[in-house]
Amino acid sequence: MTKLSGFPELLPAERHVELHVLDHLRRVFELHGFANVETRAVETTDTLLRKGEIDNEVYVLRRLQAEDQESDVGLGLHYDLTVPFARYVLENAGRLEFPFRRYQIQKVWRGERPQQGRFREFTQADIDVVAKDELAFHFDVEIAQVMAEALGDLPVPHLTLQVSNRKILEGFYLGLGVADPPAVMQVIDKLDKLSTDAVALQLTDLGLTGFQAAECVNLAQISTADTSFVERVRAMGVSHELLDAGLDELAQVVGAAHSTEGVTVVADLRIARGLDYYTGTVFETRMAGYEQLGSICSGGRYDRLATDGRSTYPGVGISLGVSRLIIPLLADGLTSDRSVPSSVLVALVDEDSRSESADVASRLRARGIPTEVAASAQKFGKQIRYAERRGIPYVWFPGESHEVKDIRSGEQVGADPDAWNPPADDLKPQIKEQHL
Amino acid sequence: MTKLSGFPELLPAERHVELHVLDHLRRVFELHGFANVETRAVETTDTLLRKGEIDNEVYVLRRLQAEDQESDVGLGLHYDLTVPFARYVLENAGRLEFPFRRYQIQKVWRGERPQQGRFREFTQADIDVVAKDELAFHFDVEIAQVMAEALGDLPVPHLTLQVSNRKILEGFYLGLGVADPPAVMQVIDKLDKLSTDAVALQLTDLGLTGFQAAECVNLAQISTADTSFVERVRAMGVSHELLDAGLDELAQVVGAAHSTEGVTVVADLRIARGLDYYTGTVFETRMAGYEQLGSICSGGRYDRLATDGRSTYPGVGISLGVSRLIIPLLADGLTSDRSVPSSVLVALVDEDSRSESADVASRLRARGIPTEVAASAQKFGKQIRYAERRGIPYVWFPGESHEVKDIRSGEQVGADPDAWNPPADDLKPQIKEQHL
Repeated sequence: MTKLSGFPELLPAERHVELHVLDHLRRVFELHGFANVETRAVETTDTLLRKGEIDNEVYVLRRLQAEDQESDVGLGLHYDLTVPFARYVLENAGRLEFPFRRYQIQKVWRGERPQQGRFREFTQADIDVVAKDELAFHFDVEIAQVMAEALGDLPVPHLTLQVSNRKILEGFYLGLGVADPPAVMQVIDKLDKLSTDAVALQLTDLGLTGFQAAECVNLAQISTADTSFVERVRAMGVSHELLDAGLDELAQVVGAAHSTEGVTVVADLRIARGLDYYTGTVFETRMAGYEQLGSICSGGRYDRLATDGRSTYPGVGISLGVSRLIIPLLADGLTSDRSVPSSVLVALVDEDSRSESADVASRLRARGIPTEVAASAQKFGKQIRYAERRGIPYVWFPGESHEVKDIRSGEQVGADPDAWNPPADDLKPQIKEQHL
Repeated sequence: MTKLSGFPELLPAERHVELHVLDHLRRVFELHGFANVETRAVETTDTLLRKGEIDNEVYVLRRLQAEDQESDVGLGLHYDLTVPFARYVLENAGRLEFPFRRYQIQKVWRGERPQQGRFREFTQADIDVVAKDELAFHFDVEIAQVMAEALGDLPVPHLTLQVSNRKILEGFYLGLGVADPPAVMQVIDKLDKLSTDAVALQLTDLGLTGFQAAECVNLAQISTADTSFVERVRAMGVSHELLDAGLDELAQVVGAAHSTEGVTVVADLRIARGLDYYTGTVFETRMAGYEQLGSICSGGRYDRLATDGRSTYPGVGISLGVSRLIIPLLADGLTSDRSVPSSVLVALVDEDSRSESADVASRLRARGIPTEVAASAQKFGKQIRYAERRGIPYVWFPGESHEVKDIRSGEQVGADPDAWNPPADDLKPQIKEQHL
């Protein structure tokens, strides 16, 4: 059996890591009042093709046994969660309360060639706030705060949430006298891969003067962990009302989104997201030591997420690539201490006393302790090794006087099935950060 | 916008019901030591076609923009979770510990014509235990117990978990002198839809005598909530060693799987699962008042789940149709009391004091209370209606002396953001069983 390239699957101990991450995200999102939504895996090909440039990444469906003319069902698998969410909002606009905060955690599919950190099937976790007709700016601040809080406390290397604002870039370029700001943003976006000289050269190819090109590159070098970027941009002497608006907005986001343990929030004017349709705030996120993955969490403000002709639904959101974040770390040794949820294995004296062991297990479960009963009445030494191989920390020996053994320390004590509790940390699989 | 038939999508308040069900299932499965696994959504068409009779229900993928000869990628969407699990077990056999208990909750897809209770995309929740070479019978008992416990405590009408054993049917038919037991099982399976006379007629068409046909139908009428079915079968005077083995096994399952609040476990010899490849225990489940849905939870023992030539992996499992269970109930009025997770809305005195309101929200969240801040500084009456429309039970008024109002009762009291707690029931959306 060979694995399918681009379709990662996890072993149970690895899946505990993913569940830990997903549970944490859900908890933070719900604490902030974000409602969960799932959309169907498929959209009509019309809907999927509306965002032109990614056509060739779409998997479309046909029914295997249908006659040729009926086999194409006009549906494809969604490649992100934004397009389906926009469609969901329009379809249910009359039944949703706006502003509408939602989180959505689902698999998405792209028919692209798999490469490092890119998959054909992967999990995304998105939060968005969408309103009808008008969306107050404070939601941009909130989205940054909520995602920064969610990214904190994860078992991953340090993250940097980089925030920028396209109004700053566009206003600055216009103030400089540049004719086509969107084209400049697309070039600036390449600073990840190209040298500043190469980018400046591409900008002069677009018709910018050497001075304009240099200033565009200089602007992109500004990155501060506080609002001091405002002063540095002002010092460059360019003025435009769009620039003013953008600086004010970005200062609000960076000023309010306090960095937390594990996550630094910075203003970074290199972030342009040139190929997307953002209209103000934009986000990207880098993980220390894993910069080659690119941004693992991106998004921004889009003033025209969806429209039904009568109303427009502006939104702001950010999308975390859960698989892109986790899978490289799992490959580098991140795992959990168990392949099963069980905290306790109840030993079996002999097959005839299975119901006594099952009764102990029930009493432990009734108090929330994940418990399994030994599969067969082997010698106790073998039953302990059975627990060990699965990472189950405790083995329970039933009898007239019950005893429970912590098989890591070897300590064995008398215990009451209706009263004994493991330490809270042993109730769930623990994440182990090996080799990171 | 028209909805896509067969691809159900839920509104946020309905999704809370689904999340409640999924969380409950996960909790019970993990308490019993079942490890979670997710498999990729796609399998190779070879793998999908191995189970012959459902070819025409498979959606296969092609890349939209690829050249014709490359467009078929040889992959299709899985139509159940058993085929992918069998493939996962073979692929990872060297890295799994057997016996292996796993639960799997995922969407599956079938390209069939949608009808009442049948969907093209739906969620299944499966538990299975699989072993290498040999699987002890007590796992059949365990699977029934775990699913019965999981089905209890759900916000659904009364459920009946019907257990049978194909060894009883096969042994009885052989003892009667019937030549082709599998053919008889396929006919007996139709007792759901056809009268006993019509079924008896089809059996005589198979070559059974009138007496044999009548006895096969009579056997299928036996259904008991305890082990008294053994005596009733014995009284029919047929004997065969396979019948003895089956009666013993079924008595063990029904004797041990105590009925719980909301779930009755019965021996029901009408259950044959004629089209499946089960070798012993078989399960089906009916919901009171929703019998037309057919079985919402089915499974059984399959001694040859998977084989890699050297080893065989026998298993026993059961699969709950979560969508099939929930969606008809949602259509009949099952819902939750909120469209958001928020328990508290912090009111906004004016836009300038947003940070004070946000600070109260942070302090409540730090103690696990889902909280959102009002979207705009409207009059308090409008902010209360904002909460009301979303089902948020509490509105918090910040100030020098904080107050919190239960907007259902109208009661308003002084409160400390670092100490106040809502009643536990108000922390999460509550399920409402309207019109059921």
